[in-house]
Amino acid sequence: MVPAQPDMERGLTLKADKPIIKSFLWQDFYKFTMGYFVYHLYKDVTVRYAFKNRTTGIHIGNLIDIGALKEELDHVRTLHITRSEHHYLRGTFEYGNKMFSDDYLDFLRDITMPDYHFEVVDGQIALEFEGPWSTAIYWEIFALVIVQTLLGRAVLKRHSRFELDAVRAEGVRRLADKIAILKTRPDIIFSDFGTRRAFSPEWQEYVVGALSEELPGGYQFLGTSNVWLAMQYGLLPMGTDAHERTMVIAALMDNDPEGNGVRAAISTATQQWWDLYNYGLSIALPDTFGTDAFLRSFTPAQAYTWKGFRQDSGDPLDIIGNKYIPFYRQCGMNDGEIRGKLAIPSDGLELPLMTKITDTFKDVVRISSGWGTNLTNDLGLKTLSIVIKVVSANGRGTVKLSDNPTKAMGRSEDIARYMKIFVYGAHDSVECKY
Amino acid sequence: MVPAQPDMERGLTLKADKPIIKSFLWQDFYKFTMGYFVYHLYKDVTVRYAFKNRTTGIHIGNLIDIGALKEELDHVRTLHITRSEHHYLRGTFEYGNKMFSDDYLDFLRDITMPDYHFEVVDGQIALEFEGPWSTAIYWEIFALVIVQTLLGRAVLKRHSRFELDAVRAEGVRRLADKIAILKTRPDIIFSDFGTRRAFSPEWQEYVVGALSEELPGGYQFLGTSNVWLAMQYGLLPMGTDAHERTMVIAALMDNDPEGNGVRAAISTATQQWWDLYNYGLSIALPDTFGTDAFLRSFTPAQAYTWKGFRQDSGDPLDIIGNKYIPFYRQCGMNDGEIRGKLAIPSDGLELPLMTKITDTFKDVVRISSGWGTNLTNDLGLKTLSIVIKVVSANGRGTVKLSDNPTKAMGRSEDIARYMKIFVYGAHDSVECKY
Repeated sequence: MVPAQPDMERGLTLKADKPIIKSFLWQDFYKFTMGYFVYHLYKDVTVRYAFKNRTTGIHIGNLIDIGALKEELDHVRTLHITRSEHHYLRGTFEYGNKMFSDDYLDFLRDITMPDYHFEVVDGQIALEFEGPWSTAIYWEIFALVIVQTLLGRAVLKRHSRFELDAVRAEGVRRLADKIAILKTRPDIIFSDFGTRRAFSPEWQEYVVGALSEELPGGYQFLGTSNVWLAMQYGLLPMGTDAHERTMVIAALMDNDPEGNGVRAAISTATQQWWDLYNYGLSIALPDTFGTDAFLRSFTPAQAYTWKGFRQDSGDPLDIIGNKYIPFYRQCGMNDGEIRGKLAIPSDGLELPLMTKITDTFKDVVRISSGWGTNLTNDLGLKTLSIVIKVVSANGRGTVKLSDNPTKAMGRSEDIARYMKIFVYGAHDSVECKY
Repeated sequence: MVPAQPDMERGLTLKADKPIIKSFLWQDFYKFTMGYFVYHLYKDVTVRYAFKNRTTGIHIGNLIDIGALKEELDHVRTLHITRSEHHYLRGTFEYGNKMFSDDYLDFLRDITMPDYHFEVVDGQIALEFEGPWSTAIYWEIFALVIVQTLLGRAVLKRHSRFELDAVRAEGVRRLADKIAILKTRPDIIFSDFGTRRAFSPEWQEYVVGALSEELPGGYQFLGTSNVWLAMQYGLLPMGTDAHERTMVIAALMDNDPEGNGVRAAISTATQQWWDLYNYGLSIALPDTFGTDAFLRSFTPAQAYTWKGFRQDSGDPLDIIGNKYIPFYRQCGMNDGEIRGKLAIPSDGLELPLMTKITDTFKDVVRISSGWGTNLTNDLGLKTLSIVIKVVSANGRGTVKLSDNPTKAMGRSEDIARYMKIFVYGAHDSVECKY
């Protein structure tokens, strides 16, 4: 297939197609890399995911079209990968010889997504997904994209034709500004990580289409986490690992009051990932229980062999400069070796911050940014902070601490326990277990 | 990717896109199966292909836009497979675990098609392609599609808008008639083999899109030989082998005056194909030097293990009924075993003949038709018979005899020699080397 030309007309209408999710590949790539890992090792673990609106002042349940929401969620349950999508995933060559097994791909061909639980409570939507981890894992992206798109429709509902035109113009103008800056700074390397927060699938396709035309070649605009868009536009599909993987493994290993199982979960998750994918997907996501705890468990051999880190919470300048780099040094690496490593900031990036990170670590470490909301939902409209997170595994509560204490997730007693187990916040100096 | 919806508007305009060949996958699938075979075993053989207009009364060189022809041929020389096309080919799962090697796919990513030789002689176009077999092999389809499309444009050039509408209507009406009949006869199984003779790429896409909507599921309309359309519409990519493979191998083995090398070429070609693809692509094309000659070389073990035959010249009722079936019987197969075999007629099919073949061999052998010109170039316009064929290999003339003596190709002295070597026409009784 020739890379599609971005359909300017279509992206510009701001009209959402029906159905919103038109393909099972409208997913972040890491859902498939984790999905295969889960299929391979944790197939029958029962997990529960819950929707959360962090912007509590906005009552989503009163705002969006509930009938459309259910219709769109029901539609997702009819999706499978098509024959050509099967070819595409099976033929993925960028991260190793044969990353997905045929039985996993057959499973995706025959998959039926588990049912959802939905109600409106005090004007907010309560939306939960429970089922085998191997299938429920795909709900997060599908459901977030649907809610996000319906929110956008609700916001624009009372706009006149001219007002719609003005919103569109603002979105294009902002994208044009970004592209103009990027063209003067070819050293700012980035990928589209904005599927879950995009204004709509059509808008994201417009943005990615424009980027692939304006910054062609895959040198600066490396690729997209959106598998459908990667396939459609001939871009590199991007992504490796997310927090849910270590969160669930920790919950499953939580078999002793002292927390030895939970503590060991980090290195178990790390090793199992390597065993499955080796070098190809060796980007560690160290902040699930705080980066300090992760670095304590990461061996010098792993520091040498893994490609690098994704930095997803806390201050990227601090985390990269004061944790990753000193850690690599303590592991015995010289400047040249560290320059070969990769750091992928992916938390709430905007172009000024991306520029600052790039400038700061020029000649120190390779930086490649995962650009989300600000890339795919920047039309001058208010955006909400909505998430869907795994909340339990085989009935046990899951926890995420991250490097930003206000972003901790889980039951408060579980959070407190995990903080104690990981001595959260106490370790400011970086150690390497030489 | 979600299978594309056929773009009715677009297909219906009869307007050809620019460029005509928009992807390296605008190819018959068998060019890639043969292409890999050649890359693997005969990479550096030099071959020459020549264009031939069998409808000698029409002076193509005076008819078509020569500037456009050169521009379109030059454009082909800039094409490679894209990243997503690489995924697609690499992930092909229908004919074996990993049918194309990574070095072959890298080769397609970096390919530059060899140059062409072009002139107008006595109102006809002389168009030749010479180069390594591993690259020149792709020219046949690209060049035929270009010439065919430019012929269509030339024919329609002086049509008024209403006349264009009427041509379009006639094409749709004829397709509608076909589909109506096929819906009453779900036992008529077929694939689109019409890439090289299509009115234009847009019209073929329209036809394939309509078929995939009207006869969905892949039960009756099995797939298409056009790899781009297979990818775009989520259809089975169809095809195995063509005459050029055995023709070139015979020319290369033509090292003795007695013709022992040429004679042995059939079984060499057969065995090498099996060694590379095994059962997955085991559809024999027996008529290169006449089906009798092929069956003399085909062993009972091969008859048992190979899926079946493609029938590409002569009377299909005669060839299947009086050659294939008796041959299988002589090899010791019972009726049930023969019913498991596949015969793929692919020569000049129209629906009445497809119906007759299907009826005749109901309960005898599986029939799956490869439908060409009459499927993709049936708009009530006169069609020409144009071909591009391999004419030499490492400087030696190649020969095709087929089961229709009027279709024999090659220098007349070479044809006579091959006829003698293969005792062409003398063997009417079928033998099996039990």
